[in-house]
Amino acid sequence: MTAKPEILKLSKVANSRLFYIEAMELRFSNGVERQYERLRTGRQGAVMIVAINGRDEVLLIREYAAGLEEYVLTLPKGLIDPGEDAATAANRELQEEAGFGAREVSHVRQLTAAPNYMGHRLEVMLARDLYPSKLEGDEPEPLEVIPWPLSKLPELFEREEFSEGRAIAALCLVQQRLAKTD
Amino acid sequence: MTAKPEILKLSKVANSRLFYIEAMELRFSNGVERQYERLRTGRQGAVMIVAINGRDEVLLIREYAAGLEEYVLTLPKGLIDPGEDAATAANRELQEEAGFGAREVSHVRQLTAAPNYMGHRLEVMLARDLYPSKLEGDEPEPLEVIPWPLSKLPELFEREEFSEGRAIAALCLVQQRLAKTD
Repeated sequence: MTAKPEILKLSKVANSRLFYIEAMELRFSNGVERQYERLRTGRQGAVMIVAINGRDEVLLIREYAAGLEEYVLTLPKGLIDPGEDAATAANRELQEEAGFGAREVSHVRQLTAAPNYMGHRLEVMLARDLYPSKLEGDEPEPLEVIPWPLSKLPELFEREEFSEGRAIAALCLVQQRLAKTD
Repeated sequence: MTAKPEILKLSKVANSRLFYIEAMELRFSNGVERQYERLRTGRQGAVMIVAINGRDEVLLIREYAAGLEEYVLTLPKGLIDPGEDAATAANRELQEEAGFGAREVSHVRQLTAAPNYMGHRLEVMLARDLYPSKLEGDEPEPLEVIPWPLSKLPELFEREEFSEGRAIAALCLVQQRLAKTD
């Protein structure tokens, strides 16, 4: 196993309301030095929720994605608030974005988005035993909620509007877990 | 289908060698106005390569991920150079990062990373009929290449060091495609 590069220097390049760009001077174990840039991440973390209802459907949402300037189909997700654990955050976000609470929430695995230049970590949570419950979130408009049959995931993965890598990964991982326990 | 929000204003917040932070003033179709921030993306795009050898193994690489400050296991990937198409970029990156060329390269699908605040798009490419061929890349150190049996993807998806959502998604999508054509 290669020894990690030594971090010679970290310095702020720029920051904004949401982002903090950091320059990193690294010395690799073979002596090569490089300067990298990355986005520094808050400590709070985030959750993505695979919520399955009694008809073996997963709850998708349709929301505006500012990065793409498109409405996209994806899974409910959001930041973990200070003092919350991942399960509590998942249950809150599910109520805010999809209008359901869950009596059963379990952790599936941690995913990263673009680890070469972002430290973001997302906890995939499986939510079951759902009941209708709406909490007010900070969405600018109500989100459309689309229940999608688990038996039709291959068709979902071919839809252009369902493009987020972490959402496809989350559904694959849950499918794998359910196949093991059923 | 909801009409897209109107973009009232786009303005630069900060930029660096790698990143460009943009503020977006939006008016949603219900009249609500919001200011968002996002990372603007270059036009070139990127590829992620699922390269399968004659022993039904996929080629993984182990590289240092500056965002996580860890060595991670992932798929070869990289930016599409000006003038390249995705298949050419995939074949070049595969030679630079894994030491193999491919006689057959096909497009699987486009993935996004964090569409709420990033416009990044990544083309998942399937590479087969491999042959040894090494091109010099810009890596600070040689990457370790790990052939991983396709029959053991569930075990891979449970490894903490294989955490990138788009890499897990890419392998699921290829698995789905191979199951259909075999």
